Amino acid sequence: MTARIQAASTAPVRQSSVRAHNLALALQTVATSENPISRAFVAAATGLTRATVSALVDDLISGGLLVEGDPVTRTGAGRPAAGLTLAPDGAFGLGLEINVDYLAACVVDLTGAVRFRVVSPSDPRQLGSWATTLARLTRGIPSVAGAALAVPGLVSADGIVRVAPNLGWQDVDAASILGETLGMPVAVDNEANLAALSELRAAGGRPTFAYISGEIGIGAGLVLEGALYRGVRGWSGEIGHLPVHPDGRACRCGARGCLEQYAGQEAILRTAGVTTLADLPDRADLSEAGTALGIALAGVVNLLDLDTIVLGGIYGPLLPRLRPGIEQELRRRVLTASLAPIALRASVLGADAAMRGAAESVIRAILEDPASFLGGR
Amino acid sequence: MTARIQAASTAPVRQSSVRAHNLALALQTVATSENPISRAFVAAATGLTRATVSALVDDLISGGLLVEGDPVTRTGAGRPAAGLTLAPDGAFGLGLEINVDYLAACVVDLTGAVRFRVVSPSDPRQLGSWATTLARLTRGIPSVAGAALAVPGLVSADGIVRVAPNLGWQDVDAASILGETLGMPVAVDNEANLAALSELRAAGGRPTFAYISGEIGIGAGLVLEGALYRGVRGWSGEIGHLPVHPDGRACRCGARGCLEQYAGQEAILRTAGVTTLADLPDRADLSEAGTALGIALAGVVNLLDLDTIVLGGIYGPLLPRLRPGIEQELRRRVLTASLAPIALRASVLGADAAMRGAAESVIRAILEDPASFLGGR
Repeated sequence: MTARIQAASTAPVRQSSVRAHNLALALQTVATSENPISRAFVAAATGLTRATVSALVDDLISGGLLVEGDPVTRTGAGRPAAGLTLAPDGAFGLGLEINVDYLAACVVDLTGAVRFRVVSPSDPRQLGSWATTLARLTRGIPSVAGAALAVPGLVSADGIVRVAPNLGWQDVDAASILGETLGMPVAVDNEANLAALSELRAAGGRPTFAYISGEIGIGAGLVLEGALYRGVRGWSGEIGHLPVHPDGRACRCGARGCLEQYAGQEAILRTAGVTTLADLPDRADLSEAGTALGIALAGVVNLLDLDTIVLGGIYGPLLPRLRPGIEQELRRRVLTASLAPIALRASVLGADAAMRGAAESVIRAILEDPASFLGGR
Repeated sequence: MTARIQAASTAPVRQSSVRAHNLALALQTVATSENPISRAFVAAATGLTRATVSALVDDLISGGLLVEGDPVTRTGAGRPAAGLTLAPDGAFGLGLEINVDYLAACVVDLTGAVRFRVVSPSDPRQLGSWATTLARLTRGIPSVAGAALAVPGLVSADGIVRVAPNLGWQDVDAASILGETLGMPVAVDNEANLAALSELRAAGGRPTFAYISGEIGIGAGLVLEGALYRGVRGWSGEIGHLPVHPDGRACRCGARGCLEQYAGQEAILRTAGVTTLADLPDRADLSEAGTALGIALAGVVNLLDLDTIVLGGIYGPLLPRLRPGIEQELRRRVLTASLAPIALRASVLGADAAMRGAAESVIRAILEDPASFLGGR
């Protein structure tokens, strides 16, 4: 018989891991607060003693992660306490994105604010020279703690890009290539996953949604009950290869009738008879793409019982024209459509979602384990 | 910026909830052990004192959930301690299943063993008379703690069956109807979810798989990283209505081309020109059903990156004949098919999976909260 709650572990806890845990707890208490908070508040919120909190906070301040500012106004007696906030210039995360027709980068600070952003139409084969340019650009920014790269492809747990069909990549160690030039650690992740994480941060709470990333390829980041669902090998979300017309158009993956062949960027441009999105007429008929997306998304909702679908990448600005086709298929094909609504909305972060998600993943790693960050300085 | 680890709660913990927690901990420590274990072992495994454990164990024994048997053999000095095990007759769970063409029931004991089982070809409209029969049958079994009913439909959180298209049910309060006749609480859940939970218990560990339940309708229970994924409203797994041929056969749900119209029991029988599964010739061509299942499952794997698919219900015995069609479509359509294998296997519990899952859910509730069970006696 299943007993889901396992017996409590009796393994000893080392002192250094206790300090690491408490540093993270103190830092996150400040990070999740809307306003500056006092050391006493951190103590009350964490259950740690004031002396312990003060030692932790001193370490976080000297490590550049917190600043202690003007006294916090408070009601009641006693002298006003000083307010703690995340240090705006304490550490930065570099977010990178590579796609078929552009390269992009941004720098995000500890508070999540974007401090630098560049997007250039480019050829992914210029990865080396792009890295050199980025290295020069970011050399002026002290405290870049690390970088993460968003790729439209399957990334294995060791950071190798196993397949990125639309980039023509197979078993590419992009992390090493970029890391050497940039002189910092580079993590690699799927672009739809990173975009979904950024959308999750912006949404807050424990939402369940599918983030659909429309580019040359189509990816999905699945957020289930507030957490990114990656799959057994980390390869979830390959919605671009859901069969929508099983005997239909040949796909570059080798199958027939994949969603990408009806709703990917190239299919949309081909159907409209233009070569770039900028040339797409306002009155272009997007019903084929909308219907194909609707068929695929009806399957996703029937399977996962989502209440929200977020459209990102090129789909954000195109949503008003895609919506009728998508909603018609959802109404027709989702078994529960008449029982419960399905919200369909554009990404709040627009085209920057993936690279922001990449940059934020560097910051999140610091907030989750400040001890490693402080120890590595 | 996201801080995923929230500050520890400082809310006070009441004594009664500490006792409830520790009762569950002690009971589960015994339940998850392969062999009888001593009180001292329970103390060591839980980190509780021996005196506390002894008081808890005494309560669990007097409440009929544990028995203390022959001394446990052990190496080393000291006198042998007596061994604790779950009481085989301490409490029972009644599992019920209703489907288009049969009604079924089983009784499972605390250890998960099936002690009683009946399956009768029947009409779901006879639910009332069936409940009366069951009430008579189970009156002879003392300590039936509760019942759970597996239905092929959408169940809302309050236990109402919102829609069960193949039963013709809409907003049916089956829990109340059965509960009154049986004189015990009855929970209601989707049959594929309950079957997937039973399959999860049998598999152990933290697997990720889709359990596909083939009956008149087709349902899926999604187990992601060792836990059943229910969806936002509890309506996940409606794989029978995944579009496999979007312009194809009309489905009773109102859409076209749903999987059910190609791979449901009625579609399989119609294609073979017979009226019952018993009449299905060994050489009947099941390639249409296999291909349709393969198209739908390719979508599921592309989306969720599963490594295992479990086929249950009528699909278990038919798997050898469905396999070629399914595997051909998975090879052709799953983007990662060449990178990682997908295991396709029959349910280890066969046609009983859903009703066993129902009965086990009653037992699991006792193991997770023995204090409520003991308090209610």
